[in-house]
Amino acid sequence: MKGKLYLIPLPVGGADYRDVIPGNVIRITLGLRHFLAEDIRSARRYLRSVSRDFPIDGSIFYKISDIDDDKQLAGYLQPAMEGHDTGLLSEAGMPCILDPGEKIVLKAHSLGIKVVPLTGPSSVFLALAASGLNGENFRVHGYLPVQAPDLKRKISEIENRSMSGEAQVFIETPFRNQRLSGFLLDTCRPGTMLCIAADITMESEEITTKTISEWKKNPPQINKRQVIYILQAGQK
Amino acid sequence: MKGKLYLIPLPVGGADYRDVIPGNVIRITLGLRHFLAEDIRSARRYLRSVSRDFPIDGSIFYKISDIDDDKQLAGYLQPAMEGHDTGLLSEAGMPCILDPGEKIVLKAHSLGIKVVPLTGPSSVFLALAASGLNGENFRVHGYLPVQAPDLKRKISEIENRSMSGEAQVFIETPFRNQRLSGFLLDTCRPGTMLCIAADITMESEEITTKTISEWKKNPPQINKRQVIYILQAGQK
Repeated sequence: MKGKLYLIPLPVGGADYRDVIPGNVIRITLGLRHFLAEDIRSARRYLRSVSRDFPIDGSIFYKISDIDDDKQLAGYLQPAMEGHDTGLLSEAGMPCILDPGEKIVLKAHSLGIKVVPLTGPSSVFLALAASGLNGENFRVHGYLPVQAPDLKRKISEIENRSMSGEAQVFIETPFRNQRLSGFLLDTCRPGTMLCIAADITMESEEITTKTISEWKKNPPQINKRQVIYILQAGQK
Repeated sequence: MKGKLYLIPLPVGGADYRDVIPGNVIRITLGLRHFLAEDIRSARRYLRSVSRDFPIDGSIFYKISDIDDDKQLAGYLQPAMEGHDTGLLSEAGMPCILDPGEKIVLKAHSLGIKVVPLTGPSSVFLALAASGLNGENFRVHGYLPVQAPDLKRKISEIENRSMSGEAQVFIETPFRNQRLSGFLLDTCRPGTMLCIAADITMESEEITTKTISEWKKNPPQINKRQVIYILQAGQK
């Protein structure tokens, strides 16, 4: 019988694992001895942090990347093909959601390996739930373009789409957050709603939804923080 | 000082809460005495199921709906304005994600009440992670139209959009799943990828991604099950 491929979520930004990982997910994770991870050191560190007795040396870790070819993907899944349950670990949050892993999962489907997603934090979903914006019709864009003219064009395009009431979700790397928020305040209409969700699940978590004109009176301070942006110009 | 509005996720379809709800989320939930819920009976049942000693009679429950007016919304948040932490409970999964609650959350933002999303299961996100399809660019549509011509048109429109590699996520009520899957198999191109994620987090969970032509050889059996659909025609 083939092993399963478990998708293992990890806490985000140093949050306490008991705040965001269910007890039985920890139990399943600690029962595994085969792991696929973006960064093996942090995977080991996590396992040690939830159980000091975890047999790190009796476990096998494979380093994955998002540019793996078909042969590598098949290699990662060889233990599962041989009957070993295998854990795919994210670096933070849910694997495959704005995070690597989807190629391995798709390969698992094609090999008839059962894929089991385990519950844990997903910053995008938590931010959307806490935004008060449209949680039934929404679109996630990942990163927006970096170059100023492309970025401005994309922001306007996204804002126009959201006139229908569809929430538009995107992210930025921490060191460019202050820049992106400036572009948003400059480019968008005064009445457009903008949620800035910073440091989701962390001590410093701060989630605020208000109009562009309200933000302008009191611009966000999000330099080097983890931020999810949600924009919505119209009502559904 | 104002109380906080906690967004409290619940297990889906009778899943064991220890599989999907972190220990500290249970702890926070049991510390509350003010609750907003779509269905008060099931909210009470849940609280009892995680702690037999929970003081149901010493707690206050407000029934919410998705058509509440501004005055009702302000009323729900009165306890928080007076300093009481308040829990907004979903019926299943995350509040506000394909579930009521977003109007209350938006009102909370306008009143300066801190909104705190707690980690728990979100079927849509778990399905997407386990689909192997695009977890960086995706669009969630909620329910598709019911009438046959509108439904066919919408499916084609969604499939065409996904030629760019953007994953398209939608849902259907359980008793119409078999019908919708028939329309999908009839309408879509043979090479389009379709993930059918049934009974997420439950014992009977089954998540399968394959092409329309593969599905046709072995059509899904999803009558009366909880299903998330994810369609993707092209690669990102």
